[in-house]
Amino acid sequence: MAHYVLTLGCPDRTGIVARIATFLSNAGGWITEAAYHADAETNWFFTRQVVRADSLAFPLEELRRRFAQVAAELGAPDGWRVSDTARPPRVVMLVSREGHCLYDLLGRYAGGELAMDVRAVVGNHTALEPITRAHGIAFHHVPFAPGAQGKRAAFDEIRKLVDAEEPDAIVLARFMQIVPPDLCEAWAGRMLNIHHSFLPSFIGARPYHQAHTRGVKLVGATCHYVTDDLDAGPIIEQDVIRVDHSDTVADMVRKGRDIEKVVLARGLRAHLEDRVLVHGNRTVVFH
Amino acid sequence: MAHYVLTLGCPDRTGIVARIATFLSNAGGWITEAAYHADAETNWFFTRQVVRADSLAFPLEELRRRFAQVAAELGAPDGWRVSDTARPPRVVMLVSREGHCLYDLLGRYAGGELAMDVRAVVGNHTALEPITRAHGIAFHHVPFAPGAQGKRAAFDEIRKLVDAEEPDAIVLARFMQIVPPDLCEAWAGRMLNIHHSFLPSFIGARPYHQAHTRGVKLVGATCHYVTDDLDAGPIIEQDVIRVDHSDTVADMVRKGRDIEKVVLARGLRAHLEDRVLVHGNRTVVFH
Amino acid sequence: MAHYVLTLGCPDRTGIVARIATFLSNAGGWITEAAYHADAETNWFFTRQVVRADSLAFPLEELRRRFAQVAAELGAPDGWRVSDTARPPRVVMLVSREGHCLYDLLGRYAGGELAMDVRAVVGNHTALEPITRAHGIAFHHVPFAPGAQGKRAAFDEIRKLVDAEEPDAIVLARFMQIVPPDLCEAWAGRMLNIHHSFLPSFIGARPYHQAHTRGVKLVGATCHYVTDDLDAGPIIEQDVIRVDHSDTVADMVRKGRDIEKVVLARGLRAHLEDRVLVHGNRTVVFH
Amino acid sequence: MAHYVLTLGCPDRTGIVARIATFLSNAGGWITEAAYHADAETNWFFTRQVVRADSLAFPLEELRRRFAQVAAELGAPDGWRVSDTARPPRVVMLVSREGHCLYDLLGRYAGGELAMDVRAVVGNHTALEPITRAHGIAFHHVPFAPGAQGKRAAFDEIRKLVDAEEPDAIVLARFMQIVPPDLCEAWAGRMLNIHHSFLPSFIGARPYHQAHTRGVKLVGATCHYVTDDLDAGPIIEQDVIRVDHSDTVADMVRKGRDIEKVVLARGLRAHLEDRVLVHGNRTVVFH
Repeated sequence: MAHYVLTLGCPDRTGIVARIATFLSNAGGWITEAAYHADAETNWFFTRQVVRADSLAFPLEELRRRFAQVAAELGAPDGWRVSDTARPPRVVMLVSREGHCLYDLLGRYAGGELAMDVRAVVGNHTALEPITRAHGIAFHHVPFAPGAQGKRAAFDEIRKLVDAEEPDAIVLARFMQIVPPDLCEAWAGRMLNIHHSFLPSFIGARPYHQAHTRGVKLVGATCHYVTDDLDAGPIIEQDVIRVDHSDTVADMVRKGRDIEKVVLARGLRAHLEDRVLVHGNRTVVFH
Repeated sequence: MAHYVLTLGCPDRTGIVARIATFLSNAGGWITEAAYHADAETNWFFTRQVVRADSLAFPLEELRRRFAQVAAELGAPDGWRVSDTARPPRVVMLVSREGHCLYDLLGRYAGGELAMDVRAVVGNHTALEPITRAHGIAFHHVPFAPGAQGKRAAFDEIRKLVDAEEPDAIVLARFMQIVPPDLCEAWAGRMLNIHHSFLPSFIGARPYHQAHTRGVKLVGATCHYVTDDLDAGPIIEQDVIRVDHSDTVADMVRKGRDIEKVVLARGLRAHLEDRVLVHGNRTVVFH
Repeated sequence: MAHYVLTLGCPDRTGIVARIATFLSNAGGWITEAAYHADAETNWFFTRQVVRADSLAFPLEELRRRFAQVAAELGAPDGWRVSDTARPPRVVMLVSREGHCLYDLLGRYAGGELAMDVRAVVGNHTALEPITRAHGIAFHHVPFAPGAQGKRAAFDEIRKLVDAEEPDAIVLARFMQIVPPDLCEAWAGRMLNIHHSFLPSFIGARPYHQAHTRGVKLVGATCHYVTDDLDAGPIIEQDVIRVDHSDTVADMVRKGRDIEKVVLARGLRAHLEDRVLVHGNRTVVFH
Repeated sequence: MAHYVLTLGCPDRTGIVARIATFLSNAGGWITEAAYHADAETNWFFTRQVVRADSLAFPLEELRRRFAQVAAELGAPDGWRVSDTARPPRVVMLVSREGHCLYDLLGRYAGGELAMDVRAVVGNHTALEPITRAHGIAFHHVPFAPGAQGKRAAFDEIRKLVDAEEPDAIVLARFMQIVPPDLCEAWAGRMLNIHHSFLPSFIGARPYHQAHTRGVKLVGATCHYVTDDLDAGPIIEQDVIRVDHSDTVADMVRKGRDIEKVVLARGLRAHLEDRVLVHGNRTVVFH
């Protein structure tokens, strides 16, 4: 059954819930999920509403037109979004050699767990080409020639391949390359990364080595939107797993992978279902 | 700052959110928290709203009178409640010899973490009398004479002591006695127990022994409303902690205590803040 | 680098550690891991030792011959085992239609995370044949004809296919069929199942439905050795994940899958590395 | 029943386990717990052994004399320790105004959960004096006069009070003052702190504010030995708890307290039972 998902972030004031609820009620909207959050610190209001498509008297475009008016009234002409669950979001994944996140996402995709349309996988190595093709998905190999110029050329090629798919999500599934600022900007709010530490601990390279050296008792992973500021983008999801003195760096890497996979999958799912609203450098994630 | 907390459970249908939101909006209500849940299976709707007391044009009693009408309209003349955070809920605790839950709750109380008014502690032993009195709280010793008659007499005495305080919550903080059906009924929806297992595993006596015998790898605790049906009341909160083969029953008991304390404290907090709505044998807990 | 893994369970008494340590020390054994556990309740002693193969003055067969003598002296002529990490354990997996556990195990296998030799996958449906073959692994389809006779015939066929591989582990990766007693006995201590609940809660069919009805706040999964007594075999590993009132049965199933996968992978890994020693219905798992 | 706990850290080589096990076996020692760890990276070996006191043919001092020889042979004349569980370790606690950790430790102490002898509590405020005295424990108030000189004078006074008790553990139970280098050195390996973040995240002041600003999805706590290098000492124990966008800083503080309490209690317990061996800036914690 198709649903429309409405999200809105706007300045807080009294009467917003009533305004939106009345709007939907008047339209005959059957609300199956509704979540609200008022952030006292920034005085900002957030909501996510799920409405049965067949309960509305008018089509999607009309809903968008009318909801745009409500959003404008509420002081957020650009802070809203309406998506249609009948059209699964389009996804492109960027990978390198390490496969655990890709295997996991493809397994979930094959099992029908993630409602998405995986358009392509782009890799700077070919290690993950066979498994991608086994799932019937296009794989593009974009090797990185040495030096800044090689990197730039590769990213230009990647950008073309990605943009051609008009994706709703670009997933860095252990891509291991720093994305240049122009792509961060072009894909802002759509590009998700999985970082292999519990940020802000162990920013940068080789976080498990850093964790081992510091002697921490838990290692973690962080799914965040990619911004220009390395490993500092808005956090969507995090989790940790226990380690102890007997764990070598290799053990930490192995245990950490289980957390990376699941944190990326949860973060991506929240993104695909329009559960994530970004405000400044923080996220509201409606579960 | 004082707030009113409104909760409602009623048959689901379209327009409920709009009805309540409009009602509050018309009254000038400044909503600081709002949570909704529609249960598709039972077709029941649940909400909890927190309103700033000073934003309303009329006093508490008038709010109750008006909200009663709304609730009646929505088909739930008895399914609502409005409480005032300016009047901390009244609590009585029942204990035996084991102190970890009582120590924990009194520590939180002293630290201002739990907004409640602890009226009294009732114990069938005197072991916990000194710590109770050190916190300036009345302690009543009600010994249990042997046999069914002794038990009945003790519970009659307890009932008198408890009812005299008109408590909003009766907390069995490791009380270790089976409460008779008439008290379960009299205190329905107000009596919380902490069971030292992850229910429905290990119902009944000595759950840690049962857990050890079965060789489980996690032990847990469950905070639930007490009903007549032993250990089968609506669950409010649960958590677990890892154990392994090297843990004796005594180790499990010790590790389990840390979970019991925190699960009871979380469950009680949710109850005191009117975050728990019971429907049949299940709970909606708005966090 | 190849290692020998020695495990032993024997009656407890003083001097066992000294006996084994001296035996290995005299043989020049370089111990890289050593774990001990004395169970006070059953008065049983357990150990697992990992020795560098190249540190010993004699070959594997001689180690086995000598260690058999030590074990016999210690009262456990059959309670020991020596395996060689240079020979990865052989594994057969049994599946049905649901793929999340198989996808996960194959992903780990492909990524080199699990040191094993997957000989074959046997399925009573063909849904998972393509992904199995994409990983270069043989897939045998054994359909179950209706009725007791059909089931018996299918299990006879499965037994032949499995036994032909002489597997060290038979993994029921959401196989969904009750294995007959004769196979339970033939594969005792080698057959691992993943049960989709936190046993002993919700034994039997449709545990997530049972969990939803009971209103629990956590759901879990259990990896255990299969015995004749349904869902009651020795537990190897368990874990849980939080759910709440807003989770439908379908949500619980989805969240639970993430726990099933990881619990099965951890349990299998422990089994493959000879970290699990069974005693009665309980396990010692050396991490 | 009294036990002796032997710990040793020494350069790794073959035969250590055999040497120690034979030593204990020859002395008639009945080992009830034994743990070993060889750190491949630093090539260091660690062990902890628990022996029934009544199983040895000689008294504690003789055990110490003989074990000192073994340790010297193994290249670690100063890397060993033998303690007697019949003599509970002596503890002094340093507190400020916030009571949740002290309440928790005193509750565990009263309940017999922590085998220790709490000699005194020292506070720079008097807020926690009544609860301390209610437990029958001496409380010393040492106010901090403003300025560096006032602080120095206060720490001199604290040092006298603490050293007079010859404590095995000095616990900073949310003491909130930076301990000067000379005290860090004097109490090295005996002074435990609870830091209210998952170190190395959010070092320094107001970690929950930092966590809120960064928008993390988990907050944590760290129990570590205090060194001269603020918040960088060897970590003993850590844990985390989930938070989300709806949690204010005050909510994070409240949720974090539950983790602080339990992490400090676990860390202290490990320290008191001689389960923690420090090597460089990392710890081996034998569970």
